[in-house]
Amino acid sequence: MAILHSYPFCPQSRFARLVLAELGLEPDVVEEKPWDRRVPFLEINPAGSLPLYIDDSGLAVAGPSCLAEYLDETRGEDLRDRRFLPQELGQRVEVRRLLDWFLVKFHGEVSDYLATEKIYKRFMPGELGGGPPDMGAIRAAQTNVRYHLKYIGFLISKRNWLAGDQMTYADLAAAAHLSVVDYLGDVPWNEDETAKLWYARIKSRPSFRALLADRVPGMAPADHYDNLDF
Amino acid sequence: MAILHSYPFCPQSRFARLVLAELGLEPDVVEEKPWDRRVPFLEINPAGSLPLYIDDSGLAVAGPSCLAEYLDETRGEDLRDRRFLPQELGQRVEVRRLLDWFLVKFHGEVSDYLATEKIYKRFMPGELGGGPPDMGAIRAAQTNVRYHLKYIGFLISKRNWLAGDQMTYADLAAAAHLSVVDYLGDVPWNEDETAKLWYARIKSRPSFRALLADRVPGMAPADHYDNLDF
Repeated sequence: MAILHSYPFCPQSRFARLVLAELGLEPDVVEEKPWDRRVPFLEINPAGSLPLYIDDSGLAVAGPSCLAEYLDETRGEDLRDRRFLPQELGQRVEVRRLLDWFLVKFHGEVSDYLATEKIYKRFMPGELGGGPPDMGAIRAAQTNVRYHLKYIGFLISKRNWLAGDQMTYADLAAAAHLSVVDYLGDVPWNEDETAKLWYARIKSRPSFRALLADRVPGMAPADHYDNLDF
Repeated sequence: MAILHSYPFCPQSRFARLVLAELGLEPDVVEEKPWDRRVPFLEINPAGSLPLYIDDSGLAVAGPSCLAEYLDETRGEDLRDRRFLPQELGQRVEVRRLLDWFLVKFHGEVSDYLATEKIYKRFMPGELGGGPPDMGAIRAAQTNVRYHLKYIGFLISKRNWLAGDQMTYADLAAAAHLSVVDYLGDVPWNEDETAKLWYARIKSRPSFRALLADRVPGMAPADHYDNLDF
């Protein structure tokens, strides 16, 4: 039985959950607090990063982009025209460009700040960095999210999905990261109707249901969080 | 003719230069200052990241990990047993884990801080963040590099190269990033003889020569920087 080590509000874990659900894979899920640095977890994944997927054969695949490549190599060809990393070279380059955009750039400029400051710090022990949020970091992320949203709107104004005609890893990565920001009410959807329609489309997929059911204890989501017609 | 947009002391650019040299590819090189954000450059690569490789057909490949995947897909099979992303699934997972380690983690904890604070800021205009280095960031990076060096030593004590029997992208990424830190004299080589021997081995490859010839105007490298028997 495969195992997914993940954390409900870790955007990188959410990307893994979406991709696995889209592929019909249902691993056992182990909740791993990103700040915990449990020794048995670090022994498998010294980087301490999430997600960590352990396949049926015991092979450990750490981190969102490595998991995306692994799943493409092991299952991609069977998906044929709904492969999340399409066959054609130019499309693969474009999907990876945007995958990197959301998994690294958006994470570093928006979702990591917001998840850490607004969610993780509520549960972290003080000696590991828990406590009140850093308002400067939150404001920076809230400013940064605006140009990312505009970029999504720009891409979707020219294409059906972020990287082209079909839904790819790029859409799943963007939506996974945005979903955490959206829980917190920090996506200014009214600034970009095109981006909003794209998100409504991806959010209504069955793979999204589990994410929309997650709750931070003691912290309600934004009103529209689990509303498919927001 | 292929083109590589890069910056001599950008560690991600150095990874691209090493990989391309190992493959015998000699693109035209365009120097791109990471802080410049030139509009014609951003039009090709909106993320503004380096390296940016434009192949003979005009396909633009941005960022170090996308370039690694692109080169594997277009040239990997011809390399057979000296492929930098080996054929076998478990090895590919291990190479990508370590590639991510150096291109993202080491970059975020060590090489980006040191390159930015000690080199880029000397040349950046003040309004873009130029000026005296942030000593706190430098000290943090100097502390962090020690455990990365120890991890390299740990891996090399069990394997011939970082990810296994053969040299892979993992070695080229680690060496590219370390080479910038080494120019600055900030690698505590005396703390890990095993890591040092691995670096001496990779540094003596012909692909490394161009890197060792680079100089920061007005800033000499550490004494041993271009000494192959340091």
